[in-house]
Amino acid sequence: MTYCCALNVDEGIVFASDTRTNAGPDHIAVVPKMSVWERPGDRVIVMLVSGNLAATQKIVNLLDERLASTEAPSLWTVNSMFNAALLVGDTVREVWRSDGEALRQFGYEFALSLILGGQIAGEPPRLFNVYAAGNFVETTRETPYFQIGEVKYGKPIIDRVVSSDTPLGKAAKCALVSFASTMRSNVTVGMPIDLLIYRRDSLRVDLRRRYEEQDAYFSGLSAGFGEGIIRVFDALPDPA
Amino acid sequence: MTYCCALNVDEGIVFASDTRTNAGPDHIAVVPKMSVWERPGDRVIVMLVSGNLAATQKIVNLLDERLASTEAPSLWTVNSMFNAALLVGDTVREVWRSDGEALRQFGYEFALSLILGGQIAGEPPRLFNVYAAGNFVETTRETPYFQIGEVKYGKPIIDRVVSSDTPLGKAAKCALVSFASTMRSNVTVGMPIDLLIYRRDSLRVDLRRRYEEQDAYFSGLSAGFGEGIIRVFDALPDPA
Repeated sequence: MTYCCALNVDEGIVFASDTRTNAGPDHIAVVPKMSVWERPGDRVIVMLVSGNLAATQKIVNLLDERLASTEAPSLWTVNSMFNAALLVGDTVREVWRSDGEALRQFGYEFALSLILGGQIAGEPPRLFNVYAAGNFVETTRETPYFQIGEVKYGKPIIDRVVSSDTPLGKAAKCALVSFASTMRSNVTVGMPIDLLIYRRDSLRVDLRRRYEEQDAYFSGLSAGFGEGIIRVFDALPDPA
Repeated sequence: MTYCCALNVDEGIVFASDTRTNAGPDHIAVVPKMSVWERPGDRVIVMLVSGNLAATQKIVNLLDERLASTEAPSLWTVNSMFNAALLVGDTVREVWRSDGEALRQFGYEFALSLILGGQIAGEPPRLFNVYAAGNFVETTRETPYFQIGEVKYGKPIIDRVVSSDTPLGKAAKCALVSFASTMRSNVTVGMPIDLLIYRRDSLRVDLRRRYEEQDAYFSGLSAGFGEGIIRVFDALPDPA
């Protein structure tokens, strides 16, 4: 399983992803799920992936390989995040055409979901969720975030505290608490966690940080949130 | 969707169930999911149901119909909760034999899950989860609860605050907070909520209460928990 989320607030975008992949309980590995294409002053594009690992790695490889192309569009040449999402969607479909039928024959679904966001000079930051069919949706001011993978346990805290005008630091804290809640309830989502903060109009990565197991800040956040919830619960009255 | 949970603690068992059923967004109805068989001084048996409504109602009807039988075993005549679970499991299989194939032909799964618990004089309270195949598992001191239906959003609070030695009133409060969390994140789980508290060795229902929309205690609990979480979150430091 995987958990990734990204929050698109007025001050910028927060991206976070776990690094655990599993193909059964005795086949667990650390695999980063965050890819970053950064050309300072021009663009920052970030992609988070969940689902079939072979397919998502192939998508990232194809996108990387085409960066050097002078003919085909690439993440360096697209002139808007919408066109970046179209390019990623086309790449998803290309992999589906090459691998989908073989997967089906072996009883696997072509199942994946991507989060793609960032900013290209000349337009505001934008955030998309690209589906396995290659189509995609974009966040709105009313619903400024996406989650992929094991989304349920980490959703309530985002719904409670994040809106478009949430400060960037608070949004980053929320993403990490969302991860703490998810990892407490689902052992297939695991540390380390990759966090990337993009500040609007900076056109460079503001902060990129890996939280390892035993990280003091993350452990304190997770414990402080858990203990706080128990205090809140204990202070509420029992039913009559 | 449905959400039901039951917590088997040293002082007794708490049962809670929602009452919303839906077959599409324009077909939502209030249907209780809690059945109670009580013979004071002898036994209290409670069943919570989720899944195919026609199947679960048929199971309850068959169990009720047989209460009058002098030959077939019934919930009045079984001498242990284990035998009650066997009887319920057999009834599930009977309905599967009568309806499973027709459901399949129409593209529906025979999908349901039941929580069965209570106490019969001569043994301690016991709590089971009966599956669609008619087999069942029992709580342990280490894992003293079951949930059925939309289980994810309401699970973290139970994991955080309930263990076998949790007082009965606190367990009941936890069940209700678990419902508040679930209903906040999934609109197909809805009020009113039925709560039943069974106190160990009382062999009668201690409290049975329906929480309607606008119930002052439940609204206060839900709001108090939500506001408390936001306070806890706000007090935690942002990432550096």
